[in-house]
Amino acid sequence: MSDSSEPNEHRVGKVYLVGSGPGDPELMTVKARRLVEEADVVLHDKLPGPEILGLVPEERREDVGKRAGGEWTPQEYTNRRLVELAEEGKMVVRLKGGDPFVFGRGGEEMEHLAENGIPFEVVPGITSPIGGPGVAGIPVTHRDHTSSVSFVTGHEDPTKEESAVDWQALADTGGTIVVLMGVGKLPQYTQALLDAGKSPETPVALVERATWPDMRVATGTLETIVDVRDSEDIEPPAITVIGEVAATRERVVTFLANRTGEYEEEGSE
Amino acid sequence: MSDSSEPNEHRVGKVYLVGSGPGDPELMTVKARRLVEEADVVLHDKLPGPEILGLVPEERREDVGKRAGGEWTPQEYTNRRLVELAEEGKMVVRLKGGDPFVFGRGGEEMEHLAENGIPFEVVPGITSPIGGPGVAGIPVTHRDHTSSVSFVTGHEDPTKEESAVDWQALADTGGTIVVLMGVGKLPQYTQALLDAGKSPETPVALVERATWPDMRVATGTLETIVDVRDSEDIEPPAITVIGEVAATRERVVTFLANRTGEYEEEGSE
Ligand SMILES: C[S@@+](CC[C@H](N)C(=O)[O-])C[C@H]1O[C@@H](n2cnc3c(N)ncnc32)[C@H](O)[C@@H]1O
Ligand SMILES: C[S@@+](CC[C@H](N)C(=O)[O-])C[C@H]1O[C@@H](n2cnc3c(N)ncnc32)[C@H](O)[C@@H]1O
Repeated sequence: MSDSSEPNEHRVGKVYLVGSGPGDPELMTVKARRLVEEADVVLHDKLPGPEILGLVPEERREDVGKRAGGEWTPQEYTNRRLVELAEEGKMVVRLKGGDPFVFGRGGEEMEHLAENGIPFEVVPGITSPIGGPGVAGIPVTHRDHTSSVSFVTGHEDPTKEESAVDWQALADTGGTIVVLMGVGKLPQYTQALLDAGKSPETPVALVERATWPDMRVATGTLETIVDVRDSEDIEPPAITVIGEVAATRERVVTFLANRTGEYEEEGSE
Repeated sequence: MSDSSEPNEHRVGKVYLVGSGPGDPELMTVKARRLVEEADVVLHDKLPGPEILGLVPEERREDVGKRAGGEWTPQEYTNRRLVELAEEGKMVVRLKGGDPFVFGRGGEEMEHLAENGIPFEVVPGITSPIGGPGVAGIPVTHRDHTSSVSFVTGHEDPTKEESAVDWQALADTGGTIVVLMGVGKLPQYTQALLDAGKSPETPVALVERATWPDMRVATGTLETIVDVRDSEDIEPPAITVIGEVAATRERVVTFLANRTGEYEEEGSE
């Protein structure tokens, strides 16, 4: 809606790379909320979740997560579309789940914009590997247990030779390990961590659809978590937290008044 | 201010562990803003920064960062005070810089609350090791360069035997390394990473007071960054980003319209 009263064909617009946070609209930043309201167009995929996408009137949003069958890959399509809209002078919000720079391909989009001379701004969001465990009562760092935390993609098959993720090194850090996109390959990387010498008793938590109304949390150990996933039927999107901190939840959950609890009760009616 | 019209001595209050984000008030979540407005008392230290603390009227805030000389450690004092206020029936916001669970001792406070039967809620915030580099044009993950990112404290002396941080393992992950509280010990841990086999050419960026009006960014390599820190006089609070992603900034900064730029210009008047 910005400047739409004084159109100027030759003025290039601007792209905002905006994190939407994990799903609860109240966990958007004040700035993200404002930009989503002011934008001429909001380009998004599914990850921001139904509650947040519902804030944007349909005539101002474009789903770029759908284009898998087209002439370009979804990423190429998104890159092109961002430049195209900015060149029309539009104020564009590229809305991404969580933070745009945590496994969100925001880096690629930013570089594409700069290569094409498009002014842009970065608006960080609450990232799911911190905020997801957090609302479930799991601190990713803890003075008593860990002096580092690593975020890693579980998408790659750790049994493949060319896997870019070094599970041995991650185990050796001794810190918390948080896996994104890690529901499907859970059996492979929990085994890789056991092979790397992690104790089978290491606490593990799965946080599904963190901060969404139907959020769920399941806990176990490196040895039991695959069975837990299956019996609880945990599905993506979910976060896997591996390390002593994952056991914190049980110690505090009685007094934890976050949405989780509220919704679990509502769900059980 | 909640319920102050109907005081009830026997009703216990509630504590919100709230992240304030890195400093820009617009990067607070909508929920953090609302809670800070509604709270009876806001307990804070200095990290949220002057702009955010300025949002809370003085009569409703308590600085718990100051109590170092008293009967308890600052942490013990904070723990006690949170319970005390909640037992008076107050709605208490414990406001922490960044995210409460990233090197913020939020885990300890949460456990103390649960042990004392105080209901609490966790409100994640934008963490400085992601949002800080982000607004400076540095994505902590990037498909082309890295499939993991590790956050670690630089506070411990890596030359000491008992250092809990395994710099060799962190180097071996091959992922981005982001150091918090790492201005003073920069010479020690850059050396530890060189000893661990990281290339001297590895890009490094320092982001000082990210998203504050006087934010500054300085870049170099594992070999040069200590000199850069000294010549640019970089001071805490700052974030150190180590890895290929740190070089992204130079490729995009011309078109980066974040506060950085705005304020650098203002500062140079
Ligand atoms: C492509 S990554 C994007 C991450 C995102 N940029 C962020 O900062 O949270 C997608 C993965 O994020 C995680 N994720 C995102 N939102 C989530 C949520 N609300 N609950 C649990 N996991 C989530 C899941 O692991 C999912 O597979
Ligand atoms: C005790 S830790 C707390 C981190 C905080 N909980 C977070 O999530 O950002 C303090 C360290 O955070 C980093 N930090 C916090 N705010 C910052 C900012 N605005 N700019 C740069 N670094 C910051 C610095 O490394 C500082 O030494």
